Amino acid sequence: MPDSDALIATHAPLLAQAREAARTRAYFAAFAESPSTRIWGEAAPPDGRAAFDALLHQTFPLHTPGARGLIAPEVPPYGVPLDISYPHLHADGVDELVRAAKKAMPAWRDAGPEIRSAIGIEILTRINARSFEFAHAVMHTSGQAFVMAFQAGGAHAHERGLEAIAYAYDAMTQVPTAVSWEKARSKGEPQRLAKTFTIVPRGVALVIGCSTFPTWNSYPGFFASLVTGNPVIVKPHPHAVLPLALTVGVARDVLTEYGFDPNLVTLAVDGTGETVASTLAMHPDVRVIDYTGSTSYGEWLEANALQARVFTEKAGVNCVVIDSTDDLNGLAANLAYSLSLYSGQMCTTPQTIFIPRAGIATESGPASVADVVTTLGSALDDLLGDPARAVNMLGAIVDDAVLRRLDEASTAGEVVIKSRAIEHPEFAAARVRTPLVVRAAADADAYRHECFGPIAFIVETADTAASLDAWRRIVEASGSLTASVYSTDADVLAAAHAVALDTGVSMSSNLTTDTYVNQTVAFSDYHGTGANRAANATLTDLAFVADRFRIVETRRPQ
Amino acid sequence: MPDSDALIATHAPLLAQAREAARTRAYFAAFAESPSTRIWGEAAPPDGRAAFDALLHQTFPLHTPGARGLIAPEVPPYGVPLDISYPHLHADGVDELVRAAKKAMPAWRDAGPEIRSAIGIEILTRINARSFEFAHAVMHTSGQAFVMAFQAGGAHAHERGLEAIAYAYDAMTQVPTAVSWEKARSKGEPQRLAKTFTIVPRGVALVIGCSTFPTWNSYPGFFASLVTGNPVIVKPHPHAVLPLALTVGVARDVLTEYGFDPNLVTLAVDGTGETVASTLAMHPDVRVIDYTGSTSYGEWLEANALQARVFTEKAGVNCVVIDSTDDLNGLAANLAYSLSLYSGQMCTTPQTIFIPRAGIATESGPASVADVVTTLGSALDDLLGDPARAVNMLGAIVDDAVLRRLDEASTAGEVVIKSRAIEHPEFAAARVRTPLVVRAAADADAYRHECFGPIAFIVETADTAASLDAWRRIVEASGSLTASVYSTDADVLAAAHAVALDTGVSMSSNLTTDTYVNQTVAFSDYHGTGANRAANATLTDLAFVADRFRIVETRRPQ
Repeated sequence: MPDSDALIATHAPLLAQAREAARTRAYFAAFAESPSTRIWGEAAPPDGRAAFDALLHQTFPLHTPGARGLIAPEVPPYGVPLDISYPHLHADGVDELVRAAKKAMPAWRDAGPEIRSAIGIEILTRINARSFEFAHAVMHTSGQAFVMAFQAGGAHAHERGLEAIAYAYDAMTQVPTAVSWEKARSKGEPQRLAKTFTIVPRGVALVIGCSTFPTWNSYPGFFASLVTGNPVIVKPHPHAVLPLALTVGVARDVLTEYGFDPNLVTLAVDGTGETVASTLAMHPDVRVIDYTGSTSYGEWLEANALQARVFTEKAGVNCVVIDSTDDLNGLAANLAYSLSLYSGQMCTTPQTIFIPRAGIATESGPASVADVVTTLGSALDDLLGDPARAVNMLGAIVDDAVLRRLDEASTAGEVVIKSRAIEHPEFAAARVRTPLVVRAAADADAYRHECFGPIAFIVETADTAASLDAWRRIVEASGSLTASVYSTDADVLAAAHAVALDTGVSMSSNLTTDTYVNQTVAFSDYHGTGANRAANATLTDLAFVADRFRIVETRRPQ
Repeated sequence: MPDSDALIATHAPLLAQAREAARTRAYFAAFAESPSTRIWGEAAPPDGRAAFDALLHQTFPLHTPGARGLIAPEVPPYGVPLDISYPHLHADGVDELVRAAKKAMPAWRDAGPEIRSAIGIEILTRINARSFEFAHAVMHTSGQAFVMAFQAGGAHAHERGLEAIAYAYDAMTQVPTAVSWEKARSKGEPQRLAKTFTIVPRGVALVIGCSTFPTWNSYPGFFASLVTGNPVIVKPHPHAVLPLALTVGVARDVLTEYGFDPNLVTLAVDGTGETVASTLAMHPDVRVIDYTGSTSYGEWLEANALQARVFTEKAGVNCVVIDSTDDLNGLAANLAYSLSLYSGQMCTTPQTIFIPRAGIATESGPASVADVVTTLGSALDDLLGDPARAVNMLGAIVDDAVLRRLDEASTAGEVVIKSRAIEHPEFAAARVRTPLVVRAAADADAYRHECFGPIAFIVETADTAASLDAWRRIVEASGSLTASVYSTDADVLAAAHAVALDTGVSMSSNLTTDTYVNQTVAFSDYHGTGANRAANATLTDLAFVADRFRIVETRRPQ
């Protein structure tokens, strides 16, 4: 068996750097985000591709206690059928799965925070070494374009996982393992007690993945739960199993190598329309749940899985308030990018854009709402005019629901920028769409609710004060994960800041170059605030990790 | 207006010491626990008494927004009628109260963690300076004896409050207020962003107090919520209003002095049988709740106040496992003290004592169960034989429900040590009772549920393994706040430790002198684990504070 102390020593420098970065929130990256062969070598891309190809049309080699039969539930967004079969978990197998996870728990608890954290990092680094293989898996399940799948599904997800480990390690090691406590008595010997403090897991953890960011959104909860001592059952979205099956496979391999029960990490696959997630979530021994997905199911979990600590990232309506700018083209290019990236299929994509109906001040004089729309339209054309480049930005539509939503949204007001279908040069079956922009009436309903996909609304307001007020009411009612404000007026920015603080939404202002409101960077940017309806948690803060474990004290006279 | 920076500087050393102590968990105390006039001066006791007397038969000078009329709901355990009237909050006043609290929030949020923490400590130190007055208030509401009211209701409560402030400060200040973030681009200038991070409160906080420890159990949540930016509505138990009314009064004075809205801290009093706590708990703007009391109401809050982060300390069944000892008299004296202190009206008092039916090994040879009971009985006689000394230990029975429970428990098995009524030398109306010890059959039900009050059960088991198993099943079913194990056998202690870790209960072993299982010391001992049904939180760990605030980020190009 490999040496645990050596593993701890190997990963100690990276852990220390990650902890430091999370405290300073200055730039830090542990993993290369570029798929360049200058970094990875010439063999990495073809090897990764070959590894991915070898998975297709096979039974995925993984044991899930309690599973019965096989299921191949994935629906390929690029039309490349995966046809991979996984162990199928039914409701009647949940007890066996949870029992197996529980059985693995005491030895993992007793191993302590140091080795658990090192094993977490070892899992991450092994996953990172297979970034090309994982990128294909993310691409052909989520519909992300390859480079995005490599970055957001790879390095950036690994950074978020490492960040969660760093926070968890910090929180666990703030508690000493023992203390010799001594209090003077009024006479005689002091009172002396030997005390121990043991980090104990809450119980079995459940991670419920989503179809669009199977790794990025799952890794923080997965690693935070695992290193704090909880066995983790991973329940992927039926359309995006492979990236998490690979993850579970790596984790089980590492755990086995270091002498732990592989059932500390298991995969629970079911099909669309099946409800094994709910059966798992309601199991009395499931005590931590991480969920990314719809508001309705997230709120169901919060209201029903009362035996568990539930961390949710749900849906929101992300607003843009345009008051004025000194770089209208930059504004338009930046916004075009944010609307286009992965066809707007991000929980952080801006959706509802407020502009005063009298127009805005720009570096070259006043611009009407129509001028702003025209500039945005040009920026979208520049970005998406070339199909080969466009598909690298847009990726593919993940499922039919997005297409239906796109159709419906086009009737919600005046279409000011049409959505176009683009033929994918490589994958003819991929559904690729450019963003739709609709001018909605101020009293319309559509722009107040999340329209997940390449859909944006322009809403004209009386003035910027009215824009800020409309934004505030949307966050209060529906929640938001992001907000973007453009203004050259310090008073407007201050008023916007007040709205951000009052409603609990992260705000970016005057983004005109290559920082985008829908992207956050691990160790520096928080994803979500947990302070409005869009999410009850943040990736990652202390609150995300501190309640995944408890502390058991013993004391005896010394 | 006094200088905020000066206040921060004044309390900085104490805050630093408290933070350090919470990390090392070595002995630390900020406040004197003894009521000795050598510490407080000769005038302190009479002055405190006079201040308390001046409150009696008066309207308590406090404004509560939304209150209508007055109410005097306290029932004096020593027969000293307080007859103090407080503003009466009805369900129809809750909206106004919550609105007033919310209105106070932005300025308090914007003031930042430094001044909020300093004000928290200032409130505590002013309360501490009035320890004698508060001790009478705690005594004549809870029924605690004077010295206990002075200690547990005074200095020890203040330590717990300071501990919560230290943890909250630590958690808030792990987040920098700003960072200049810089990432190299492949060519040209680096990407530069100015980011800010603001601690924002969750919303209005509610603290629901209990009748037995109005200050000790309320202060951690009260101070943790307040210094993290949340306005706090204090809802006392109708029988123990005064200590919290005094607390709220001090807090409002300090807040006002430093230019903050006094409605950051308000008092919500209703009468027995009224339900304003529930109306408050379900208010959509109430986002944090701290509760100490019955399991049924705590679980109701957890299941219904879904808009809030709910921290509960409920009831449990605390077990003692006696396997063997090298100091039977010490064991008995220690246990007698724990059973007697405040008539067992502590959530930490041991209740169910498992002994192998063949008896135990002691320093002077085998002792039968009857021998152990006899030794315990003698120890209780020693401790409680003198009425004047006994009442200082027992205090008074807090309410009729405890007396009824005592009657019922005497029919749950064979009474092996009778409960005696003791006449209080000073307060003839006080109901004072010595502990009842009942030998219950192994299949009896009574000992498996909390019997709050001076009630203990001896349960004979086949052997210590069976005792450990019975203990484990009780913690799993009902939860426990404490556990006590006596054994001279390292293997038994190891097996007991495993039960403690598996069931998530704090364990003391072989206590035979002046450390008692029902007492914990701030900064070193955790109260509750949050890992079993008796409580979902700990006093105090990171998890108790980290989710009382959220972080809002802003970023802009630099």
